[in-house]
This record gives sequence, C-alpha cells and structure tokens, in this order.
Amino acid sequence: MLDRPVEASAAFDLPKPYLLFLGDAADTTFLKTGLGLRDWAPALCIAEHKCAGAVATLGLPVMAPREAHAAGARALVLSAASIGGAIREAWIPYLVEAIEEGLDIVSGAHDRLGDNPLLDQAAKACGRRLIDVRTPPPGLPIATGRRRSGKRLLTVGTDCALGKKYTALAIAEALRARGLDTDFRATGQTGIMIAGRGIPIDAVVSDFVAGAAEMLSPDADPAHWDVIEGQGSLFHPSYAGVSLGLLHGSQPDVLVLCHAHGRDRIVGLTGYPLPSIGRAIEVTLQQAQLTNPEARCAGVSLNTAGLTAAEAARAISGLERDWGVPVADPIRGGDAFERLVDACLA
Amino acid sequence: MLDRPVEASAAFDLPKPYLLFLGDAADTTFLKTGLGLRDWAPALCIAEHKCAGAVATLGLPVMAPREAHAAGARALVLSAASIGGAIREAWIPYLVEAIEEGLDIVSGAHDRLGDNPLLDQAAKACGRRLIDVRTPPPGLPIATGRRRSGKRLLTVGTDCALGKKYTALAIAEALRARGLDTDFRATGQTGIMIAGRGIPIDAVVSDFVAGAAEMLSPDADPAHWDVIEGQGSLFHPSYAGVSLGLLHGSQPDVLVLCHAHGRDRIVGLTGYPLPSIGRAIEVTLQQAQLTNPEARCAGVSLNTAGLTAAEAARAISGLERDWGVPVADPIRGGDAFERLVDACLA
Repeated sequence: MLDRPVEASAAFDLPKPYLLFLGDAADTTFLKTGLGLRDWAPALCIAEHKCAGAVATLGLPVMAPREAHAAGARALVLSAASIGGAIREAWIPYLVEAIEEGLDIVSGAHDRLGDNPLLDQAAKACGRRLIDVRTPPPGLPIATGRRRSGKRLLTVGTDCALGKKYTALAIAEALRARGLDTDFRATGQTGIMIAGRGIPIDAVVSDFVAGAAEMLSPDADPAHWDVIEGQGSLFHPSYAGVSLGLLHGSQPDVLVLCHAHGRDRIVGLTGYPLPSIGRAIEVTLQQAQLTNPEARCAGVSLNTAGLTAAEAARAISGLERDWGVPVADPIRGGDAFERLVDACLA
Repeated sequence: MLDRPVEASAAFDLPKPYLLFLGDAADTTFLKTGLGLRDWAPALCIAEHKCAGAVATLGLPVMAPREAHAAGARALVLSAASIGGAIREAWIPYLVEAIEEGLDIVSGAHDRLGDNPLLDQAAKACGRRLIDVRTPPPGLPIATGRRRSGKRLLTVGTDCALGKKYTALAIAEALRARGLDTDFRATGQTGIMIAGRGIPIDAVVSDFVAGAAEMLSPDADPAHWDVIEGQGSLFHPSYAGVSLGLLHGSQPDVLVLCHAHGRDRIVGLTGYPLPSIGRAIEVTLQQAQLTNPEARCAGVSLNTAGLTAAEAARAISGLERDWGVPVADPIRGGDAFERLVDACLA
C-alpha cells in the first residue's frame, strides 16, 4: 500500500529554534504550550512575540520576526490556546509578517494553517512551510515487530491526563544528567514542539500506529535511551487501542506506570473504575511482552498535585509498601525520584 | 473536536442493489470481491457487466448500465482486483458510461475514484457519487464506553487472514435461519460491499477506532444480534491496537475465536509464535471484559482448508478435547457448526 518508508530523522523534524507567538492571550493560563516550551526546551526558545497591546508574557526576550530570524529563529510557534483550537483572525497579520521575514509557522491548533487563504498565499509566495503538528507525516509503515537496538522506556497510565508526558520529560532529563545518551520521543503535539520532532500518535490511521511507534524510536547505539511519551491508557475504553499500538511498536525495555493520587475511575466516563496498581502493571507487562519478552516495570510515577509535602510523602510510601515498587512524583523530585530512575536503569 | 456525530444508519450506507463490474479480468481468480458479493449478498447483485472481449463471468445476468438501472441497480461496483489496487485505464470509459446512466460508483481499490479527472468530472456533471469504501465516513465520535442494548458477537483471530469475515457471515446466516433478527456488521472493504454498509476500521484514525465500533453496532432491540466482522489479531504486533479498539467499542457478549489448523506463527513475520487456544481465549476475554464484564467465548472457528474431511474432523475433535470448547469449520458446516451456533446462543 505504501510507496516508500520515510526516514525517521528527517520527516518530522520541526524547523528550529523558535520565536514563541503569544497572540492576544490575556494571561499565562492560555500559554500552556508556551510554558511547556520555555520550561522544557529553553535552548529552542529564542524570544517571544505578541499582538500589539497584549499583556501576557513568558519572560523571554521580546523580538519582532525580523530580529528573531537574524538571531537564528527558523519558525514562529503558536504558543497560545484559543477556544476550540482555532487560529484567531487577530493573529493572521502577525503570522503573515513572520512568513515574509523568513520564518516557517508551527501550529498545534485544530484548525489547519493552510486552510487560511492569507497564510496559504504568503507561504507559497515566500517558499515557507506551514506545519500542523497534529498532522502525521506521510508514508508511515506497517509495523514489522523486528527488535531494534538501544534501550527504550515508555510511560503508561492508569488513565489519561495524569502526567505521562511530564514523567517522560523528567526521566529523560535525569538520564542525561547521569551522562547517558538520551532522546525524549514525543507522541503528542506539545511534546513534539518541545522535542522539535515526533509523531502525533493518536492522529495516525489505526493500521499504522505500531509502525509509527517503530519509526519514532529507530535502531540506536546499545547504550542509548529513548524515553517515549505515552498516550491514553490500556484501561480507557476510548483509547486503549492507541495505547496498545504505541506499546507494541515502542518495544519498551522499561515501563513506568503513571497514576494520579486519589483517582479511582476514568475521568469523564461512567462505570469505569481504575485497576489497582498491581493489576495495571500485570496487564501492561503482559501486553508489552508480545514484542519485548524482557519488558519490566521500574515503578510508579505518582501525581500528587494538591497534596502537602507531608501528604505526598505518605501517599508515596503507602504505594511503595502496598506494591513493592519504587514510587515518586517527578514534580517533587528528591530521593524518591532518584530511586525511581535507579530502578529504570537497574 | 467534532462538529456532530453522524447518524449510524445513514452515513455509511452504500447505494444498492449493484451492477457488478468485472473489468477485463481474465478469470475468476481476479474476481474475489465479485465472488464474495454473489455468494453472500445475492439479493444485492442485479447483474454483471464487463469490458468488451473480457471472458471471466460470475454467471449473473449480463446487463449494460442503462438496462441495470432500469432493473433497479443504483451502483456499479468494481468487482475485479488489479495489481496494486489501481483503477485501470481500460475501465474508465465503462465507469463514465455507468455514471451517465444514473449509477453511483463503489470501489474498494487503493486508488481513489475522485482522483481520476474523467470520473470526477462525470460524477459532478451527473450529480452521482464516487464512493471509496476504504475511506471512513466523516464525523466519527470518540468512544464513550456506554453499554448499548441488544446482543453482539465479534469474531477474533489468533492471526490475520484466517476466516474472521467468513465466520461472521456464516454465523449471521445461521442466526437468521433460526429466526433471529440479525445484522452482519462489516469492518473491511469486502464485508462493507456485502453488507451494503459498514466502516473500514483499519483506515480510521486511531483515536476514533473504538468510537467507530460503537457507532457500527448501535442500540438495538434486546433480542437483536449484531454479528461483527473482526479485524487483525490481539497477538499480531502490527495490528493488535486496531483489534483492541474494535473489541472495546463492539462490547461483544459473545466472542468466537478464529484459528487456522496447523498455523503456529504470525504469517509474514519472524519470531511471533501464536498463543495456544486457551491463552488466546484468556487474553481476549480479559480485554473484552473492560467494556463488557459478561463477555464470554462461545468456541473456536477452525479453518481446515486443505484437509480431507476425515483429517478436518480429527483436527476439530482434537481441539475440542484439548480446550473443552465447541469447535467447527463454518465452511464444512454440519453438526459441529450447529453446536458452535448453539454455544453462541447459550
């Protein structure tokens, strides 16, 4: 069915570094993408730019597109959220100017950049790219199941939206801090902007999900680590198929199970209790071992947002005692997190 | 993300009955789709039509498009395979004529009908539809996991390409023969043409697979049966995610495990042995019970192609003895198959 495979390192690389466009955001609660980029990919963030009169800031240097391009920026990234994922009319003149000054445009919005005739026209006239990171690259292969060289870690969850991306980023950073050659492999739009590359796995046609995951973490040096951002949950009735395709294609050596303290059911649905930690580990390993018989679970990343430090410590030690695995909240870091990282490398 | 859900019964219905177009096929080995339609959906097959000088036939009445339309046909169906799934140039004048005579065109080819300018132009001029059954309908929802009324049966496999569609068609026919209100629910292109509707599940964006499966078998009368065509296999490293999304969205009450006698590894891959029958049932039920805690396995559909009748009977009774479940080859039918159907209804 496919003409040719696409070479992994080229097809989904974003132009970088970035000029972060904050649009007309009223405050930083609308700047989740921008905050993620500033905090996790500071080396990619040359400067910020916004609509005249807008007030929110990420505290980066302020540059117009021309100045940013001269300073090395190669793309303007839409870094503000809008209702319904729209590309707001008020932003268009700023985006056209950026295109004319030599920047590509990168967007995670639901609207496609090229559907706006002014952007389409400007990009064609200037030979610039309009990149929707929600759109998977063409030519994704069917998975082969062939084992690849190098080490792989995948974050998985008892539910959606409880810290799989954050956990993967934190572990990748910790491995690098220990001197290990490590790549964070992004599977969602914010992660892709942070990494500067990746595949939006939930937007991939189902037949190609495992193949996309294989392409995302290609053969590497035996000592190299890919830390892969998980998606969905094997226990979520809407998304388990996405999670399973990603799990099989990733062939992880190490799994880290992400859970949110106090969450006992799938958010947003009725009648779907979460599995116990032990059951979640058992089922995930059973599935993982189809493509990597040596897969093991290193421990649990526990989201303790909203707890005091003392409450979080109690929640973490309680889970450790109940299930006999290392538990940590990467946001709190500390010794517990270092022990979880030790267990990943054990 | 979605504007509105699409009403299940309307969005993916094909125009029917059909005029089967056999193209320039040299013999019936190229007419797999046509044979499937003739054998499983005879009421939909008004007539056959082919290129001048072509010799292969399905034995249906021969009609030109005008005559077929007068006899009730509403679509011409491409019923011949071509290398690479192309729409052959030699077919185009025949398709244009059919459009001009009032028929829609239905194709399961890899090429899209609308990409041919002559077909596109003719369809627009005549107000006819060009329907690629490999293209999912728009507006598929995210799965909700809500339980639906009515009974559901799903065929699952230890591997791909071993009889899941055939088994579902045979069971649907057997249930109807017993007077039960039954729909065959198609998830692949040939099945969709046979049923006259369905969703090509492996072409659906992964986030929507379970939602598509929920839409495919909507709420029904408590005594109604949906018999759903399975796709892929939970044990196939390329496609397990597709199979899991279909399983979760289908919420089957009854599973029938399809297996091919003598097959001991995933076809086309290295290093992927098939699970035992017992293990396959256990893992499938465990996954199915996420969305339907009452899911059960009624038995095994065993593909015994290539065996003599005596060998097939021995293979069937051997599996029954080893695993304690009803086993039958639907193609051979007989008492064994009736017992498998009994077990589905038990």
